[in-house]
Amino acid sequence: MLYADISNNIARLIKDQVLKPGDRLPSVRMLCQEYGISMNTAKRVFLELESQSLILSRPQSGYFVSQLPYRRLPLPEVSQPLPVSQDLEPEALISQFYATIGRQDLTHLSLGVLSSEMLPLAKLNKEIVQATRRLSAGGTAYEQIPGNENLRRMIAARSLSWGGNLTAHDIITTTGGINALAFCMMAAGKPGDTIAMESPCYPGTLQLARSLGLNVLELPTHPVTGVEVDALKKVIHKINLCLLVPNFNTPLGSCMPAGNKQAVVELLAKHGIPLIEDDIYGDLYFGAQRPTCCKTYDEEDNVLLCSSFSKTIAPGYRVGWVVPGRYREKILKLKLVHMLSAPTLVHEAVAAFLQGSRYDNHLRQLRTSLQQNALHYFDAIAAWFPPDTRVSQPQGGIALWVEFNKNINTTALFETAMKHKIAIAPGRMFSLQDQFENCMRLSLGVKFSAEVDQKLKLLGKLLT
Amino acid sequence: MLYADISNNIARLIKDQVLKPGDRLPSVRMLCQEYGISMNTAKRVFLELESQSLILSRPQSGYFVSQLPYRRLPLPEVSQPLPVSQDLEPEALISQFYATIGRQDLTHLSLGVLSSEMLPLAKLNKEIVQATRRLSAGGTAYEQIPGNENLRRMIAARSLSWGGNLTAHDIITTTGGINALAFCMMAAGKPGDTIAMESPCYPGTLQLARSLGLNVLELPTHPVTGVEVDALKKVIHKINLCLLVPNFNTPLGSCMPAGNKQAVVELLAKHGIPLIEDDIYGDLYFGAQRPTCCKTYDEEDNVLLCSSFSKTIAPGYRVGWVVPGRYREKILKLKLVHMLSAPTLVHEAVAAFLQGSRYDNHLRQLRTSLQQNALHYFDAIAAWFPPDTRVSQPQGGIALWVEFNKNINTTALFETAMKHKIAIAPGRMFSLQDQFENCMRLSLGVKFSAEVDQKLKLLGKLLT
Repeated sequence: MLYADISNNIARLIKDQVLKPGDRLPSVRMLCQEYGISMNTAKRVFLELESQSLILSRPQSGYFVSQLPYRRLPLPEVSQPLPVSQDLEPEALISQFYATIGRQDLTHLSLGVLSSEMLPLAKLNKEIVQATRRLSAGGTAYEQIPGNENLRRMIAARSLSWGGNLTAHDIITTTGGINALAFCMMAAGKPGDTIAMESPCYPGTLQLARSLGLNVLELPTHPVTGVEVDALKKVIHKINLCLLVPNFNTPLGSCMPAGNKQAVVELLAKHGIPLIEDDIYGDLYFGAQRPTCCKTYDEEDNVLLCSSFSKTIAPGYRVGWVVPGRYREKILKLKLVHMLSAPTLVHEAVAAFLQGSRYDNHLRQLRTSLQQNALHYFDAIAAWFPPDTRVSQPQGGIALWVEFNKNINTTALFETAMKHKIAIAPGRMFSLQDQFENCMRLSLGVKFSAEVDQKLKLLGKLLT
Repeated sequence: MLYADISNNIARLIKDQVLKPGDRLPSVRMLCQEYGISMNTAKRVFLELESQSLILSRPQSGYFVSQLPYRRLPLPEVSQPLPVSQDLEPEALISQFYATIGRQDLTHLSLGVLSSEMLPLAKLNKEIVQATRRLSAGGTAYEQIPGNENLRRMIAARSLSWGGNLTAHDIITTTGGINALAFCMMAAGKPGDTIAMESPCYPGTLQLARSLGLNVLELPTHPVTGVEVDALKKVIHKINLCLLVPNFNTPLGSCMPAGNKQAVVELLAKHGIPLIEDDIYGDLYFGAQRPTCCKTYDEEDNVLLCSSFSKTIAPGYRVGWVVPGRYREKILKLKLVHMLSAPTLVHEAVAAFLQGSRYDNHLRQLRTSLQQNALHYFDAIAAWFPPDTRVSQPQGGIALWVEFNKNINTTALFETAMKHKIAIAPGRMFSLQDQFENCMRLSLGVKFSAEVDQKLKLLGKLLT
């Protein structure tokens, strides 16, 4: 029997839901026995299915049916923000939300970071100690302005994974990812400019733009394919700047198809509108292959690519970076003037951690954990939340976007949940417009547990 | 004989230059024998002379005649910037200067930081290792928004030294001192506002203000007593904001007398103009007592006090702070939006280092080293530079301001000196106006050595 026939058979079983999302597949050995094929053929079957994103491997556990292409719950609607800038910042709500962070007495269902058990703490601690010894002044000296050279070299080397071809010179390090975005907005925009962003959108980015005097124009965004290219086209003459998180943004988790990325890059370049691209979740893909970036298609040097290690290894280290393209001189100057130097010691430690295969091994485990988490959350949502609940089906990242029917108000739910020691992120936080009151974000960075399951069940009861 | 008579005698010897600046005084024991007095009386004599800043003690070395009140070289002139905002930023010159930083082949005579041999590296490394163990997620987690609580508590406790009476709640930590200044400028000013500053002024602050769209009005500044109160009065209706470094600013090293500080605070409060105070050098006083801050006299909560540990223990750690007063909410939000968290691990390490007496012991040694350095530099300047050279006589801090006659151009000197592998900081860098071309800054953070002496001698030759 040919491997293609066997893989088609299995694909059929998956599509017919005989094999269900999360189910374990037979082992390579069992497959050999069942079909009377060689080990190599069996392995090829799995590779074929994996390349179609139908199954995924988990180290030391075997192959499992992928959740991705099969929705048990419907997707949230495509967002429809007003086609004008608004500034209805839900300040009080955001303050209330941030006041929950760090509180040990709460069950946090929407922290925007990974819980520490998902981080390579012991290895990082070791690198910190090494760095104090290796650096001539123990990390107390300022770095050179572009930042730690080893770090920039390692980031450049990794750019091949998304189709980039960077050198250390193309990169400037920053004190965390938001610092990179701030520099980009300052370099490519000026107060009074209008910046287009996804909707819903990470509140920090919305607030950052407002604090720099930019007006935000929110764009209709599809839960799977991200910002709508036609929607961007329609407002192209109204905007001076664009910021996108094309890969697994929070809260939606959408991922722009390569063709859309390319179309957006070309559209913006044609109109001389700089694109700030935040790829902070790009390495957290659940599928077989890392998605490209908008920067991948940037022939005009019009894309400022930002990222950080805050969503993969160490938020508190504050290690971010930017590929500033033609804004290099401006951003170097902004870094010199606003920051002088990144924190030397922790940047050196991350540079060292990136050497060898440790980071990739960590990412592999992390992606598996996040995806397994997603499967658990899907189950819990289906079991405990109202039957008309919709939920995003992200192919990567750390966020789930839950959309209830229009009668449910998550700002009210936030307060009720707090009484039960549960912290959620109400949808209204993710816009400067009056929308998403019936939505909320959950975080895959919170390890699913019996406690989480119970709290979701309780949340479901509060909803009815 | 009364202790007052003896101390008057010795004071006379110092003022008549029988005892010269830098000379060692007899020991307590020798004084007892010489005058037939008790140990207690002898000690009282030294205390009296020290309180007059005529002598200073160096741990394990005894008492020395203070350099401060006795000028062998004349002081630089009071600066006379134009009474209008200008924006003649010497961009190329500043770039050239920053390009020298980190170059191992140069003798650096004007780095704005302490050389690493002056820093408590071993103790800090130890604290870093302890911090990785003590922090629950090894320092990879974000801090709470106001910053590390132990650090804020230690900073608050130290505020007694300048007449403050702060609690941890009054303080927000930042990622280095310049980050604190940036937040203050953003919180208390807006693009188009005019900010008054000293002249000459640290180039980073000038550039920061410009990058935020502020116009800078430079104020006449006295090399000993700092910004001229009457000069500030004259332009009070032209400004929206004021930034001062009242204690041992770079490059002048001036220190505003307490009365002037109070007058400035009252003047600005009366006109509703916020004062941003940068006290980054305040702990580096050479005299018997720490100078007060403007904040000390701030009854209207109109002063935003900023500082950092970059000039005393670890520039590369990026540990700064601000007492935002009535701008607390605004600055908390700016920190959340622009930075999210300071680098957790290094802030924790500094918090721990501040506990106990280590920081004060370190400061005591550091002050002695800086003052000794100053004495050496004065000697070298007197020996090698033209006889009409003027030099500041700072009572603290890490900068010396050298003023040559008007025929000497230090921008040209910078280029000539670079050919001889010497890096200086030309005076033109320290203004947005066309002034100080005949000045330069030297740094006390560079340990004086035979090599430095030779380079200063060479510099002297290049001047003639």
